Amino acid sequence: QINATRINATIEAACTWGNTPDGGMNRLAANEDDKRVRAWFIEETAKCGCTHKVDEMGNIFAIRPGENNTLPPIGIGSHLDTQPTGGKYDGILGVVSGMEVLRTIHENDITTYAPLAIVNWTNEEGARFPPAMLCSGVWGGAFTTEYAHSRSDASGITLRDELEAIGYLGHTPCSYEANPLSAHFEVHIEQGPILDAAESAAAVVQGVQSIRWYKVNVTGREAHTGTTPMDRRSDALLGAAEMIVATNDIVTKDSGLAARGGRATIAVINSLPQSINTIAGKLELGLDIRAPSDADVATIEQLCRRRFATISEKHGLTLNVDNFWVSPALSFDPRMVDCVRHSAQEIGCTMELVSGAGHDSVYTARKVPTAMIFVRCRDGVSHNPAEYSRPEE
Amino acid sequence: QINATRINATIEAACTWGNTPDGGMNRLAANEDDKRVRAWFIEETAKCGCTHKVDEMGNIFAIRPGENNTLPPIGIGSHLDTQPTGGKYDGILGVVSGMEVLRTIHENDITTYAPLAIVNWTNEEGARFPPAMLCSGVWGGAFTTEYAHSRSDASGITLRDELEAIGYLGHTPCSYEANPLSAHFEVHIEQGPILDAAESAAAVVQGVQSIRWYKVNVTGREAHTGTTPMDRRSDALLGAAEMIVATNDIVTKDSGLAARGGRATIAVINSLPQSINTIAGKLELGLDIRAPSDADVATIEQLCRRRFATISEKHGLTLNVDNFWVSPALSFDPRMVDCVRHSAQEIGCTMELVSGAGHDSVYTARKVPTAMIFVRCRDGVSHNPAEYSRPEE
Ligand SMILES: NC(=O)NCCC(=O)O
Ligand SMILES: NC(=O)NCCC(=O)O
Repeated sequence: QINATRINATIEAACTWGNTPDGGMNRLAANEDDKRVRAWFIEETAKCGCTHKVDEMGNIFAIRPGENNTLPPIGIGSHLDTQPTGGKYDGILGVVSGMEVLRTIHENDITTYAPLAIVNWTNEEGARFPPAMLCSGVWGGAFTTEYAHSRSDASGITLRDELEAIGYLGHTPCSYEANPLSAHFEVHIEQGPILDAAESAAAVVQGVQSIRWYKVNVTGREAHTGTTPMDRRSDALLGAAEMIVATNDIVTKDSGLAARGGRATIAVINSLPQSINTIAGKLELGLDIRAPSDADVATIEQLCRRRFATISEKHGLTLNVDNFWVSPALSFDPRMVDCVRHSAQEIGCTMELVSGAGHDSVYTARKVPTAMIFVRCRDGVSHNPAEYSRPEE
Repeated sequence: QINATRINATIEAACTWGNTPDGGMNRLAANEDDKRVRAWFIEETAKCGCTHKVDEMGNIFAIRPGENNTLPPIGIGSHLDTQPTGGKYDGILGVVSGMEVLRTIHENDITTYAPLAIVNWTNEEGARFPPAMLCSGVWGGAFTTEYAHSRSDASGITLRDELEAIGYLGHTPCSYEANPLSAHFEVHIEQGPILDAAESAAAVVQGVQSIRWYKVNVTGREAHTGTTPMDRRSDALLGAAEMIVATNDIVTKDSGLAARGGRATIAVINSLPQSINTIAGKLELGLDIRAPSDADVATIEQLCRRRFATISEKHGLTLNVDNFWVSPALSFDPRMVDCVRHSAQEIGCTMELVSGAGHDSVYTARKVPTAMIFVRCRDGVSHNPAEYSRPEE
């Protein structure tokens, strides 16, 4: 039996670095706080007999030997990086749950059949280095190491350089083939409102919905706000604003897409030249489209592209839409899901969900049997300092 | 008679620092390039017998003595700072025109009745340190020196610190009272399309339209883009997008306001937390409202406030609208305008315009008789690298 007091205390311990005055977390991947929590993770797991592999993407595998050490370890993993306005549970709960399993096994002197690996995957959030799940993605073969190394943050620093700077550019090649697991389990908060509404502590995760990310560049013509007649403008920000409204309309006003859970969001915007009396000439937007089915995501994309093109034409804007990330809908391994289902039933949890968020398990599932457990979180709030799960859950 | 070849060469010389590969200028107030062009301005005007006063706002007065040196100098001024995507004429033409008058007088050994002052006003654009015309505004009594010193750029650096850093935090108190002029003339490109459409080289400027600037802060709730249902969001960027569209509608769909030349623009936007999978929780917008009449600007403001409030309520957003700059409509001194009118008629220019842009002359007009001359610019394009006036104009 795990130690409920200890796991809750360990969540707090894992939030020692990068916490914010509002009770949340801001620990962007590969920053100084990420460096410190990684050192703590290694130190704590070493106490349970683990040795450590750090791969070329900074993923850390804390491995406790079993009876059959030629078998690949059974993985339990998630991530310790957070959103800039993140909470204490997203990702952290998954790593800490793995640590609690490890500690329970270790203090009971259990030798597992296969080795056990608690994994901290790098840059799951994608907040600093888009796309999300970047380094489990390299391990799972979705991205090359070169591509992932070259991803840069808003200030132009690459992930490779930052991993090197914090001392976590490891030597183990980042791939299932070079550094295999035999399975991957992940505990995560739901991040949505369904379990909280149902007052259910946990759920079986059947799979993960379809996700695509886009960089949208809009170019107009810089001109004086005071002297340029309204009908002689090529205003990139006015065009972008119409695109943001259109994006929201597409998923809220089409009753079919809305009923099937289509979602589309523009959350990042930057205008140039950032002068109050110069009409914006250049704009970059980040677009996130999701739906349970790949077909609906494709439909939303097509509708957005069409509306964006019409808006651009109306304002004389140049448009570029770069779909830089595709994460198709996914069902987890039935045998693994069944394993979670049986355990969940034992504690009276019978709900089954499809995840709205992507997780490292999406990419481990490309190589090894994978399953996830969702934990209830208050009001379904996540990517927000107010993110909260009750200790008993 | 001025030297047309020399004045055009001097425009080019004044663009030695801060020019951009696209043929434009990026010389934000009080940066290193501004420092260099200031040194050049002092050196060149010194060759015509000028001594220099630098005031506490970095305004430079290059003063050539006349017959009666107890009289305040007659000022000819404009600005050498530019927009981040600026051209070679906005402001620069005015300072260079003053220099050409000075050189012509000097090489013809003329002793003027009163002294002459060629003035380079600091931070006219307001692009780096809003609001615009900040330092002529201090001289004209519209702002205190403390207020202007404390204005900061996007990175938080204050104008005072930057003036000190470039060596132009002068000792002369910045005010008409401490450092008077007896009049102020300013040559400026029109920055609008009227003269170009009429194929007229220059115009008399009757006055300047009404301007107000606002900082609009919108606060929503950060949440996960993938898991948060569309109907449970408080999306600050979606709200802001609706505000941008509404602002444009107000001045384009109300036939009265449109016919009377009402303009409203949002050109600066910044979203937080800048993560593609976290719904924007905080947004800052810069709003610029203009019209020939103060009453229409007030009406546009009221309509914007009302629409913004409705949009905020719909999305559960918190709204703050800070009207941090008011520059009322202004008519220049009739005697001064008449003086320009007579000269304009001599070269066959009979058009008379109201300026759509603010100018340093707006604030000198609070203290001394002031007038402006507008020069035709191609397609009315300004605040853009393509800004252009023909050499002969
Ligand atoms: N769990 C989580 O928030 N992952 C980030 C990837 C996503 O945007 O879904
Ligand atoms: N001339 C000019 O562009 N001045 C800037 C002030 C304004 O925005 O009108």
